[in-house]
Amino acid sequence: MVALTQDADVLTFEHEHIPPHILSALHGQGVNIQPNAGALAAAQDKIHMRELLTNAGIPCPRWRAASTREELHSFGEEVGWPVIVKVPTGGYDGKGVLVLGEHDHAGWAKVDEWLGAPRGEVLAEEKVEFVAELAALSARRPSGQFVAWPVVETIQEGGVCAEVIYPAALTEAEKTEALRIAHHVATELDVTGVLAVELFKTSAGALLVNELAMRPHNSGHVTIEASRTSQFEQHLRAVLDLPLGATESTCEHAVMVNLLGSELDDPREAYREVMRRYPEVKVHLYGKAVRPGRKLGHVTVTGNDPERMRARARAAANLLHGADQKPQEST
Amino acid sequence: MVALTQDADVLTFEHEHIPPHILSALHGQGVNIQPNAGALAAAQDKIHMRELLTNAGIPCPRWRAASTREELHSFGEEVGWPVIVKVPTGGYDGKGVLVLGEHDHAGWAKVDEWLGAPRGEVLAEEKVEFVAELAALSARRPSGQFVAWPVVETIQEGGVCAEVIYPAALTEAEKTEALRIAHHVATELDVTGVLAVELFKTSAGALLVNELAMRPHNSGHVTIEASRTSQFEQHLRAVLDLPLGATESTCEHAVMVNLLGSELDDPREAYREVMRRYPEVKVHLYGKAVRPGRKLGHVTVTGNDPERMRARARAAANLLHGADQKPQEST
Repeated sequence: MVALTQDADVLTFEHEHIPPHILSALHGQGVNIQPNAGALAAAQDKIHMRELLTNAGIPCPRWRAASTREELHSFGEEVGWPVIVKVPTGGYDGKGVLVLGEHDHAGWAKVDEWLGAPRGEVLAEEKVEFVAELAALSARRPSGQFVAWPVVETIQEGGVCAEVIYPAALTEAEKTEALRIAHHVATELDVTGVLAVELFKTSAGALLVNELAMRPHNSGHVTIEASRTSQFEQHLRAVLDLPLGATESTCEHAVMVNLLGSELDDPREAYREVMRRYPEVKVHLYGKAVRPGRKLGHVTVTGNDPERMRARARAAANLLHGADQKPQEST
Repeated sequence: MVALTQDADVLTFEHEHIPPHILSALHGQGVNIQPNAGALAAAQDKIHMRELLTNAGIPCPRWRAASTREELHSFGEEVGWPVIVKVPTGGYDGKGVLVLGEHDHAGWAKVDEWLGAPRGEVLAEEKVEFVAELAALSARRPSGQFVAWPVVETIQEGGVCAEVIYPAALTEAEKTEALRIAHHVATELDVTGVLAVELFKTSAGALLVNELAMRPHNSGHVTIEASRTSQFEQHLRAVLDLPLGATESTCEHAVMVNLLGSELDDPREAYREVMRRYPEVKVHLYGKAVRPGRKLGHVTVTGNDPERMRARARAAANLLHGADQKPQEST
């Protein structure tokens, strides 16, 4: 680890699940870590995140750290059933999260398991009745420069991001509020690099912070085609404390659809047919081994007709997933 | 060669200098070659190109195939000195080309050398007094679909492309004429894949074909950032006879500047300083060993102020070339 980092200008991350003792050891040796371990802790530990955000006055769903069934039950009585229960650390893509009804025996058994783990506590949150899920993507340098991309809508399936609509259809007031929250989170937590703030939009139009990610994020893959500066270039600029690139759009709308697992041995088998049927679709395959539900790649379409773009991006992802490969007429 | 091609869907090229006997052997074995050897011959042999274009009524500089000093002298008397003399095959980036004055002894010595080669002839062309050099980039499928990108201006230094301005500042009539010529060349010569038609614009506003390239071309690198579909994706689409991608622009203007050689051992040494000073510049380095004047990479800027963009792209290329690396304030 020391050998890996000793000639590096900066150490940064592609996911949050880095044991804190490793980061503090490297920090002790003078390694430049961006985002710093203190900021990263808020993305690693959901209870810590809720404490920091709530103390800073940033709008969140109602929440409680519970270490007993009784505390959890009392929270459910207070905010209404079902509630969302999360393991504080290590969860992702719907793992370590459950929707808990008052009489959900399997759910309570899982809660018992989580409460019996060394940490001994879970995060409980009210189940927000949202009308949309959003992501506010931004980047911030150690020296303070902050830029944001247009806010996107994310469409989740089974706790996993399935689609991203760029930009989200929001009022000016909602856009302003989403960017205000993103800026507040970034500065309050001293986040550097790319920050994704996932938000619920309630039927009353309020925005509440759902999750944080401090790295290039699935909701930002669309910036490869849709923005002058992609989140990947921007993350490197930000953690190296270099001037940030422009976040202006290169298109009116963009849609991204994830490839989650595939029936094909290799989704590249469908590449040509996607190129043939959907010439406007840009295909990104990550070269990972196929496993059920795994994020194997994504497709992006830019244009000015989001509904049609979404249908065609989905159809392209379906082909990569193994849907009928028989040549058809392109449209 | 056969082993390389037997499982391939198509054989295509990144430069024209492929011995024709290899292509005909592969063609005889049923390999799908795009562009076909007949089309490629026009890009390989400049005399053959002039014959084909002239027979098709496509505007060219006045030219003559000369196999003696006397024929060349007679051509110079007819069109005026100096004239341009080219070896028919194998030249590129200013190699195999000279500007020949009536009394240019060194030039005539070179001509003698070329006339003494097995081919025994050279191509002579009038020296066109152009006001701009242009490139019309297009793509065509075997089944006929043809698309073109906006015409660009190219700025040559010492016979080598130094800069590209996207789009060229042209009247609507000039744009229409450039695209008409590109389409005429592509269809007349049955070109498939990407075709770059290099053009002279004369002071009278006429367009004359200078050179042809049947492949992704230096004048098209700007499409990576400036167009919905890059020339590289498009070339693969075209030679595979797949539907072509959209060639709409993603920006108002773009400027590309080549990195030609470098004083640095590795131009990547300057990468960070370019990122720091010119955050709008996209850097492309090809990983080639440094040699004087060699095309080692290029930089591209998109935006709406071409003169400022050009100055900044040049400054970024200068840094990669080894100009003062001392940190300065970014602007």
